Amino acid sequence: MRVNRDRLWNRQQEVGAIGAVPEGGISRFAWTPEYKEACRLLMKWMEQLGLDVRMDTAGNVFGRYEGLEKLPAILCGSHFDTVPNGGYFDGLTGIMTALEAVSTMQEAGYRPRRPIEIVAFVNEEASQFLGGTFGSKAMCGVLAEDYVDTCRHRVTGEPLRTAMMEFGMGTDPDRLMDSRINREDYFCFLEVHIEQGKYLLNENLPVSVVSDIAGIKQFYIELHGVSCHAGGMAMEDRHDTLQAAAAIAGEIERLALATGNDTRSTVGYIQSSPGEHNIIANCSVMPVDYREADDEIWTRLYEDILDYVNRECRKRGLTWSVRSTCDLAPSHCNRTIMQVMHEAADGLGIRHNEMVSFPCHDAVNLERIMPIGMVFVRSSNEGLSHCPEEYTTKEDLGDSGDVLLETLLRLGEMETL
Amino acid sequence: MRVNRDRLWNRQQEVGAIGAVPEGGISRFAWTPEYKEACRLLMKWMEQLGLDVRMDTAGNVFGRYEGLEKLPAILCGSHFDTVPNGGYFDGLTGIMTALEAVSTMQEAGYRPRRPIEIVAFVNEEASQFLGGTFGSKAMCGVLAEDYVDTCRHRVTGEPLRTAMMEFGMGTDPDRLMDSRINREDYFCFLEVHIEQGKYLLNENLPVSVVSDIAGIKQFYIELHGVSCHAGGMAMEDRHDTLQAAAAIAGEIERLALATGNDTRSTVGYIQSSPGEHNIIANCSVMPVDYREADDEIWTRLYEDILDYVNRECRKRGLTWSVRSTCDLAPSHCNRTIMQVMHEAADGLGIRHNEMVSFPCHDAVNLERIMPIGMVFVRSSNEGLSHCPEEYTTKEDLGDSGDVLLETLLRLGEMETL
Repeated sequence: MRVNRDRLWNRQQEVGAIGAVPEGGISRFAWTPEYKEACRLLMKWMEQLGLDVRMDTAGNVFGRYEGLEKLPAILCGSHFDTVPNGGYFDGLTGIMTALEAVSTMQEAGYRPRRPIEIVAFVNEEASQFLGGTFGSKAMCGVLAEDYVDTCRHRVTGEPLRTAMMEFGMGTDPDRLMDSRINREDYFCFLEVHIEQGKYLLNENLPVSVVSDIAGIKQFYIELHGVSCHAGGMAMEDRHDTLQAAAAIAGEIERLALATGNDTRSTVGYIQSSPGEHNIIANCSVMPVDYREADDEIWTRLYEDILDYVNRECRKRGLTWSVRSTCDLAPSHCNRTIMQVMHEAADGLGIRHNEMVSFPCHDAVNLERIMPIGMVFVRSSNEGLSHCPEEYTTKEDLGDSGDVLLETLLRLGEMETL
Repeated sequence: MRVNRDRLWNRQQEVGAIGAVPEGGISRFAWTPEYKEACRLLMKWMEQLGLDVRMDTAGNVFGRYEGLEKLPAILCGSHFDTVPNGGYFDGLTGIMTALEAVSTMQEAGYRPRRPIEIVAFVNEEASQFLGGTFGSKAMCGVLAEDYVDTCRHRVTGEPLRTAMMEFGMGTDPDRLMDSRINREDYFCFLEVHIEQGKYLLNENLPVSVVSDIAGIKQFYIELHGVSCHAGGMAMEDRHDTLQAAAAIAGEIERLALATGNDTRSTVGYIQSSPGEHNIIANCSVMPVDYREADDEIWTRLYEDILDYVNRECRKRGLTWSVRSTCDLAPSHCNRTIMQVMHEAADGLGIRHNEMVSFPCHDAVNLERIMPIGMVFVRSSNEGLSHCPEEYTTKEDLGDSGDVLLETLLRLGEMETL
């Protein structure tokens, strides 16, 4: 059984174009009229397949292909919204490959033992309403009860509640908790996603089996010292926060390089006050972002960084504080599902490797309650993503669809993982 | 012979208060009505002493006390303007101690062999019209001919020409070059100035003999790399300008500490683009300010810094450029004048040391054409300067006046330096 590459490509192009903006790219934000138009098209296709179609109270779209037996379903999909001026492939690829796999099964008159449930998560990108991976968080029950009132539009300040009520189609801010799924109803979650990097491109491979999704730690270090004119104070009498921040930035790089793993650490900027060319900075703030797939390294790195900050500040007579903004532990793909994916690709003659996902995905939320598996498909245009230039070829898209279909066929017959 | 400490203090308080602003401190900017009021008061005092009083075409005020012989004069003074919300002592101290020294001579019926010319330089601070040490630059002939048209008010954009014409009192933008002095008319230049630091305070000394005025090098280093999402690129594939800037900042500190001299280097900030917490910076700009009294170290440090920048950028695959904004070589006080000052202080029983001036002064311009000497007087309030809290005690002011008077008495009789 093989997917229909033309149909997959054409559908992806059709729904992917919804939300195109004059300045370039796609701006299909959750709960907008464009988003509703895309949902209606997706749901129409699902209905044509005879799936059981619904939107939950959070705004996630489901299309369920019943199995031969009353077994926990395989959940399969990705997100349906875009960043501002985004592309045709991010998120959408995971939904359209799932739809295509089920379409192929249905066309072949094949029905697996287990049900397959296609899902289109809402507001993963948080382009207007902050937070990110909203739909999958709602399903996994990790949102606060008052989320629809505290989460606001980043420009207008409008609460999420209003946008959801205006959207309709079954979304209901007062019954957000109804979108929570029961873990026992599901066997596992699968997500196909574009790589958003150029490592498959560099290795000339169409797909990859994801092993882990790196944990993300983001925090701000704030240093306080003493301001003084550049000429007025000898080096040894200074309490210079810019120099401390520079040393800390260097150590953050050094520690990441020294883990022996593919740790990625970033300091995007250092904000210093008063910020004059001839005045010693009495305050410096620096954001730190690091990503690491290994739990132990992920935990230790934070301690090592703060230990260095403490030593550096003591040396220079500074005070410091830290404010955490993101603390997402590593997620690990299920080893059996990974094995099935490898075998599926091998069986199809599709060359592939294994890699860690450094961007975050909806799968992270699902991993907290069920086994997950992810397939990456090559980003062809220099690995660019979240921009109009984002591109994946029809052939690579088809390969990822075939790997997903074959994985579904195999998992659909399995008793356990 | 000793100065009249009450008269010195009272006059300094009287003229120092001109330009007081409601929000605190003194804003007596060049060519303003407050500045004119202060000039008129100073010139009245000079006239009461029987001095030959004039304002040159740049706006510098002179009061000449003729000597017994037709010999080159000792020039003595400092600047008459303030920074916004400045204090009573910066600049003014050098003028009032000179006036007090001559007042004391005149009162004692003493006339030196050499003439003494008191000078009040205009627009040293450049609080409104950019550039700095304008008056002394004009006297030393280092201003461009079109300066009065190219130099503009930092807020209104008004050319300096207009402000000078409205000011009157002998200033004349069309004859700016007439303010240039002849080197052969002068024997040397002396300047008393507040320390603007707390080293005399820490050592419990009222005055210091300045040995050198540190050279100042100020430049901007601009680094260009490649921007990328913090998760999307492995460490070894990055071209991260923030990390390069941090390493360069650290090296700039290390190099200054390694000179074996009291070198002072400062990086006041690092400006990175796009400046997001989760994006690798593709551009970083950093100002560098360093000050060093030794000519050879001052020159070599710049080469060493740029050499490091080059190596760091090659290592990280970055491009870079440098833009110089200040390139003021070290100035050296005349060793004979320094010796006279030490002996004068010793003779008066005034404890003192020797130090390098790290801030820039009008004396730097004069040093290019004649021997100079400088006396620092203690800044009592934690070394604060350029603010309303700037303070020097009446006793310390008197000590600096006595050292200047005694130095003038000795130099006034000397044939050569």
